[in-house]
Amino acid sequence: MSVKLVVIGGGSSYTPEIIEGVIRRFDSLPITEISLVDIEEGKDKLIVIANLAKRMIEKSGKTIQLSWTLDRRQALKNADFVSTQIRVGGLNAREKDERIPLKHGFIGQETNGAGGIMKAFRTIPILLELAEDVHEICPNAWIINFTNPAGIVTEALLKHSAHKKVIGVCNIPFNMIHSTAEILNADPSQVKIEFVGMNHFVFGQRVFVDGINRTDEVLTSLARENLDYSPANIVSLGWSKGFINSMKLLPNPYHQYYYQTTDILSKDKEALKEHGTRAEIVKNLEKSLFTIYSNKDLNVKPKELEERGGAFYSDVACSLIDSIYNNKEDIQTVNTFNDGAIAELPNDSVIEANCLITKNGPKPIAIGSLPAQVKGDILQMKSFEELVILASISGDYNQAYQAFIANPLIKDERKVKSLLDELLCAHKECLPQFNKGGKGNE
Amino acid sequence: MSVKLVVIGGGSSYTPEIIEGVIRRFDSLPITEISLVDIEEGKDKLIVIANLAKRMIEKSGKTIQLSWTLDRRQALKNADFVSTQIRVGGLNAREKDERIPLKHGFIGQETNGAGGIMKAFRTIPILLELAEDVHEICPNAWIINFTNPAGIVTEALLKHSAHKKVIGVCNIPFNMIHSTAEILNADPSQVKIEFVGMNHFVFGQRVFVDGINRTDEVLTSLARENLDYSPANIVSLGWSKGFINSMKLLPNPYHQYYYQTTDILSKDKEALKEHGTRAEIVKNLEKSLFTIYSNKDLNVKPKELEERGGAFYSDVACSLIDSIYNNKEDIQTVNTFNDGAIAELPNDSVIEANCLITKNGPKPIAIGSLPAQVKGDILQMKSFEELVILASISGDYNQAYQAFIANPLIKDERKVKSLLDELLCAHKECLPQFNKGGKGNE
Amino acid sequence: MSVKLVVIGGGSSYTPEIIEGVIRRFDSLPITEISLVDIEEGKDKLIVIANLAKRMIEKSGKTIQLSWTLDRRQALKNADFVSTQIRVGGLNAREKDERIPLKHGFIGQETNGAGGIMKAFRTIPILLELAEDVHEICPNAWIINFTNPAGIVTEALLKHSAHKKVIGVCNIPFNMIHSTAEILNADPSQVKIEFVGMNHFVFGQRVFVDGINRTDEVLTSLARENLDYSPANIVSLGWSKGFINSMKLLPNPYHQYYYQTTDILSKDKEALKEHGTRAEIVKNLEKSLFTIYSNKDLNVKPKELEERGGAFYSDVACSLIDSIYNNKEDIQTVNTFNDGAIAELPNDSVIEANCLITKNGPKPIAIGSLPAQVKGDILQMKSFEELVILASISGDYNQAYQAFIANPLIKDERKVKSLLDELLCAHKECLPQFNKGGKGNE
Amino acid sequence: MSVKLVVIGGGSSYTPEIIEGVIRRFDSLPITEISLVDIEEGKDKLIVIANLAKRMIEKSGKTIQLSWTLDRRQALKNADFVSTQIRVGGLNAREKDERIPLKHGFIGQETNGAGGIMKAFRTIPILLELAEDVHEICPNAWIINFTNPAGIVTEALLKHSAHKKVIGVCNIPFNMIHSTAEILNADPSQVKIEFVGMNHFVFGQRVFVDGINRTDEVLTSLARENLDYSPANIVSLGWSKGFINSMKLLPNPYHQYYYQTTDILSKDKEALKEHGTRAEIVKNLEKSLFTIYSNKDLNVKPKELEERGGAFYSDVACSLIDSIYNNKEDIQTVNTFNDGAIAELPNDSVIEANCLITKNGPKPIAIGSLPAQVKGDILQMKSFEELVILASISGDYNQAYQAFIANPLIKDERKVKSLLDELLCAHKECLPQFNKGGKGNE
Ligand SMILES: [Mn+2]
Ligand SMILES: [Mn+2]
Ligand SMILES: [Mn+2]
Ligand SMILES: [Mn+2]
Repeated sequence: MSVKLVVIGGGSSYTPEIIEGVIRRFDSLPITEISLVDIEEGKDKLIVIANLAKRMIEKSGKTIQLSWTLDRRQALKNADFVSTQIRVGGLNAREKDERIPLKHGFIGQETNGAGGIMKAFRTIPILLELAEDVHEICPNAWIINFTNPAGIVTEALLKHSAHKKVIGVCNIPFNMIHSTAEILNADPSQVKIEFVGMNHFVFGQRVFVDGINRTDEVLTSLARENLDYSPANIVSLGWSKGFINSMKLLPNPYHQYYYQTTDILSKDKEALKEHGTRAEIVKNLEKSLFTIYSNKDLNVKPKELEERGGAFYSDVACSLIDSIYNNKEDIQTVNTFNDGAIAELPNDSVIEANCLITKNGPKPIAIGSLPAQVKGDILQMKSFEELVILASISGDYNQAYQAFIANPLIKDERKVKSLLDELLCAHKECLPQFNKGGKGNE
Repeated sequence: MSVKLVVIGGGSSYTPEIIEGVIRRFDSLPITEISLVDIEEGKDKLIVIANLAKRMIEKSGKTIQLSWTLDRRQALKNADFVSTQIRVGGLNAREKDERIPLKHGFIGQETNGAGGIMKAFRTIPILLELAEDVHEICPNAWIINFTNPAGIVTEALLKHSAHKKVIGVCNIPFNMIHSTAEILNADPSQVKIEFVGMNHFVFGQRVFVDGINRTDEVLTSLARENLDYSPANIVSLGWSKGFINSMKLLPNPYHQYYYQTTDILSKDKEALKEHGTRAEIVKNLEKSLFTIYSNKDLNVKPKELEERGGAFYSDVACSLIDSIYNNKEDIQTVNTFNDGAIAELPNDSVIEANCLITKNGPKPIAIGSLPAQVKGDILQMKSFEELVILASISGDYNQAYQAFIANPLIKDERKVKSLLDELLCAHKECLPQFNKGGKGNE
Repeated sequence: MSVKLVVIGGGSSYTPEIIEGVIRRFDSLPITEISLVDIEEGKDKLIVIANLAKRMIEKSGKTIQLSWTLDRRQALKNADFVSTQIRVGGLNAREKDERIPLKHGFIGQETNGAGGIMKAFRTIPILLELAEDVHEICPNAWIINFTNPAGIVTEALLKHSAHKKVIGVCNIPFNMIHSTAEILNADPSQVKIEFVGMNHFVFGQRVFVDGINRTDEVLTSLARENLDYSPANIVSLGWSKGFINSMKLLPNPYHQYYYQTTDILSKDKEALKEHGTRAEIVKNLEKSLFTIYSNKDLNVKPKELEERGGAFYSDVACSLIDSIYNNKEDIQTVNTFNDGAIAELPNDSVIEANCLITKNGPKPIAIGSLPAQVKGDILQMKSFEELVILASISGDYNQAYQAFIANPLIKDERKVKSLLDELLCAHKECLPQFNKGGKGNE
Repeated sequence: MSVKLVVIGGGSSYTPEIIEGVIRRFDSLPITEISLVDIEEGKDKLIVIANLAKRMIEKSGKTIQLSWTLDRRQALKNADFVSTQIRVGGLNAREKDERIPLKHGFIGQETNGAGGIMKAFRTIPILLELAEDVHEICPNAWIINFTNPAGIVTEALLKHSAHKKVIGVCNIPFNMIHSTAEILNADPSQVKIEFVGMNHFVFGQRVFVDGINRTDEVLTSLARENLDYSPANIVSLGWSKGFINSMKLLPNPYHQYYYQTTDILSKDKEALKEHGTRAEIVKNLEKSLFTIYSNKDLNVKPKELEERGGAFYSDVACSLIDSIYNNKEDIQTVNTFNDGAIAELPNDSVIEANCLITKNGPKPIAIGSLPAQVKGDILQMKSFEELVILASISGDYNQAYQAFIANPLIKDERKVKSLLDELLCAHKECLPQFNKGGKGNE
């Protein structure tokens, strides 16, 4: 048996993680062919990555054939799995997503608030095209979507492309399990969290270690102010005792944007003054990473990669591919159709849920009713996501406006228009759907 | 035929409106007995009102027997309709509802935000007792609930008391129809608005004049910045063109708290400095009203009453009583069980909806799906309301905390505890359910 | 103002009822133009009807211009209302619908069981074409669908055509109100029944006379065995005391097919032996009706018409048109989108419900949850209806089979195939969608 | 670690299966204490079983302490698992369930139709008492309910007792997997069926062998007329080719009662004439089984037991207990709360579904929408089940009547009363809730 993996956005600095994950799992998951795909603008980085990957494979002694190409359709031939990790407009676009909202008095963030919406607007049309290519060229392949906002993008693909084998992944549930395991002094493999919600808005309802409910211990730990269990890319302010004690749920690091809005906004404004946006930091990180990657003696994933926020991302993806390929029937937390798991959401909403993973993809474990204390917030966010998807596809100015109003970080109708207009203008080149001529933001 | 009306909170300055409404409709709606009920603390005002009411009746020549009492259960005997317009804790409590949140950086308002929550906490247990009395003493009587937050209170009564004949009323839909009629140069009786949502969070979806859809004209008018169609008690900033054009819905005046939060907060802070809270203004208004009322030559509803926010309130209530009594089968906008009218809400959610009014009470006209652009906001508000009701009844500190977090005007977990704690403490005497000893806000 | 009505199936023997209704309401509802449309095969009858209609109009002295045509698209120009009362395949098809099922041991009936399914299969594609014509030629016109199975046909049009102004009507609710009024010795205009369900499967939940609940009296009367309140075309066996007492609902006459299946089947078999199917009786009725219609001295609706089952049908339709045209905002019982009125059904299910009738069409009064005692039966019938619609459009043999299995009068998998195959074969000419070649009932 | 199992109905002829299952799994599932409980009337059989069980344990060499008692509350002390396999009224009651309906022209069956309803009426009150005992005495114990109608009984316990650790089991899914494995020449452990529905009304949607979809092969085999994959207690007529080909679902053996009603009824009537009811056959089977059991040399489960219908029942139960005890996180098909798994059913409906089994019990895998072709039938059966539960608890005659009407095997309102009345009378002693004096079937 042999498996072909195509990496869309292969020139990403994260790719060495995937390569390492593939090598490590080779005996149970025989990925014998990897094709790294990127666009013309990313060619130089793609070649650096491809060369590093080849050195890693050579060192491993595994019989994996690795190639790179700018011809996506060619690469898709015979693919079994297609991972996507693209950034439309690059880090420059991210910088705008972060800077412009701050200027208007809103949190600038790449997956939440106005920045996240713009990223969705830029990304969804591109990935819908990819999904159509996959459906035509390798209809049995699974798309494993890493690209943020991962939940929204996955829902857009599952609802609006013909290709229905799409799974979204994020490292947040994985991180939460690991942090919780640390709190409980347990092995992560023993820890199960009952997740509920959507990507970057997921809560933990209960924590089990070997089937024993130990939620209270975890909550008690979290309520000790400032306990930090966030990934590298999110600086946490910690959760207040009152919040944890009253809500009785494990928040995820992104919840700070929604429940600590004022403080985060202040912090972000200060940080901007001091050292620019996260995009600019990442640009430097990337520069040094690629310098390291270019070293022809390097033949392993360098430790520096872990400082990027996406650590474990590829672990998550490789585990998922492994379970699909081997029909493992284990439980992993991924983004897929709700199919009734959360009673208050439609079947075709995408949720981040504990799923049984089989050769036929993920099926969520039924959750039942949303917890009352966050039911409204979850429904509100899901409704916001739906508006983002509609606007991403239609390019309709009014729908974009509605998505902005529906976002709890924006909502302020007296400031939306200037914010939206500046963002649409700044990202003009990446938003052809909003510039079909004629109508628009008069 | 003869009808008995009991007015709970009969000492309210609004009562002369009801008396006038009853007199005006006497020929079709023979209310021959009115009992004004209040509590010991309100006895003086009650007597002033009762005397004015008697003079008004005398002048009208109608055979209406009016009495006042502090004995609620006695008054309820043989009642057909029971209207409620109480203010637990009086204007002093309202002042706290307005001042304390502002101090913590939140909008202080008596039906929205932290103030509205506290008002619900104080009011719901008292009105649940009333409902049980009604159910025991005059089980066929309809409770017409004016008391704010009217939607939440009505849902609490309908869900948690044995008495199921409860209808909530508000003058906002009535005002919106009148303002819209003015915009369209039409008679209010010709104008129909398709409302969707809940009390103080209701939107107009479409406007019809004699069955002709004239929504666009109304939206165009509203989009002209600063068009004011708010009642006397709400100073409006006007809606931005972009908001109206993109949302394509008629907001109600209370929506400014949710969609213009920052500006309203600034305005309220300034107003506080300049002339105190609205409670304090109302205290003065009330003082002069009662001076006027005490004038023994006054035998009509004085014009000054209209400067209070509740103008038309009694029109709304008397129309409702009229249609019930006469089985009119007309359409009025009231608060009642959803019963499927909004597909996304449970049957036992209370919504503010166009209803067919019969002798058997209101039945909403089916609405179908919530408009996508506000679906999330409406579901979020409803979920918030559910938490308020639960906490109002249980007196559970954590549920109160959850209600605060779920309110879109609060939400900030780093400030909730001090805000909540100060409010619970300030209103201690009106919140026995939160002070059952032992547990609570340690 | 002037209104144009187009009658599709104008050659129907029912048309004189409509003409009479139009004449009677002329002062409030100025239908000044009527176009009777039929197909080539019906031309002779169409001319007879048109001539009678002209004599009726002349006698009335109203300025109504009546014409007939075989050119449907021509007739639709400037139409305001389009009524449909067609019978694809004529009474010969009906005879097959009745005879063939009986031969296989099933009830043969034209709107229920196998016969009703076949009628839907023949009718839906034809009326979908009509709806598309209407949408193109007179997009503001309302289609008033009389054609049976009226509920299923209406749902098919509302779901599957671009034209959304479609209302289905039936005389059953009208009859139930009249029979109930008789039972209660009240005027039908005072009687309101709370209906729940779908066309020909609608129940009455509560009966009000001038707003007073008198359900129990009605149930007591119905429980007196053999009380007959069925229309002329349905011979009733009466309902057992136990059934009425335990179910506490008013059944409609068609319910006998579902709750008295064995006895009705026996009765139908005997009737078949004695005097043939209902189709054959109707053929004779029609023959004599047209003889009467042809009498050039006849200038009124002849009394004999009432012996046909459809009495009051046109009353129902003319009332509906009147309320739409005059934006009456009254309550009528019609078939339209559920839009949440019944909480257990999707918004786009068509139900038969009490609706507010305005210029913008009908909006159901919210019903809430289905009554527990018939919830399952109603959901089962609705699911059956959905299968019929899918098969009507797709012409898929398996879907047709599924519809047969789902029908509670059939269900028997060991007999379905031969029944279905014989019916598909017998109606071959009227079922082009099932004969697209290739696939099908091998 | 040690585990205590209490067997309610320990004198059942099935008990040796459980004993054997416990012995076989002893190494992974250390059930060290078994208490067999029965009632006075079953004492003799209980002693026979207990002695056989002791011999079996002795032979196995496992350290299992086995005892018997008539004192249920005593037995429950320290229980970890409580299995229930009772038959209220014994086989005599079953005989009535089978004979009386046949006399009235209806299928007489112990879990379907009128017989199944009566069994529910007799059983639910008794098991609700048990559940309350468990909740008081051993609140952490899981009730594993074997007792039929297992789905209805489980829903009754989960909805109406305080004890929420209740799981219903049936051998039908297990049998379907085994028969399917045979068809596909695969090992049962490799075969997964996606089940949808309720106990005894469950369908297989898709069949996977090692994750490969092989549904079509299975359907093709089933469509070969008369392929029998029924358990010993159900004589199958086989499914018609047309049914399998069109429905594209795997029926379960009990579906024959619903989709082959006429033929089964004829068969049952004939069988009755020839050799009495199934109850009578089982009486004889039981007699010989107990003779065998009494043989003091017997120390293994005798082969003859497999001729009873419940083969594998204990396999199902022991596997379930094993996975709970060991937190196995495997997938088993059991009866538990829907919790959204089937979008059309409420969270608190009990469904028979593939569940993840953990120490915290079963959680269904999300199913999404019901398959269109059986959606109506499943909803109808579920609604029927709800009526049965309500009547079981209330003892209300009208609700019992409604349950009879709602059952698709009965439904005939002209025969329900005499059928119901005779059954209520025949089972009078086991139905105290229907005989609380006063009201009832006048
Ligand atoms: Mn992520
Ligand atoms: Mn109000
Ligand atoms: Mn009809
Ligand atoms: Mn079973």
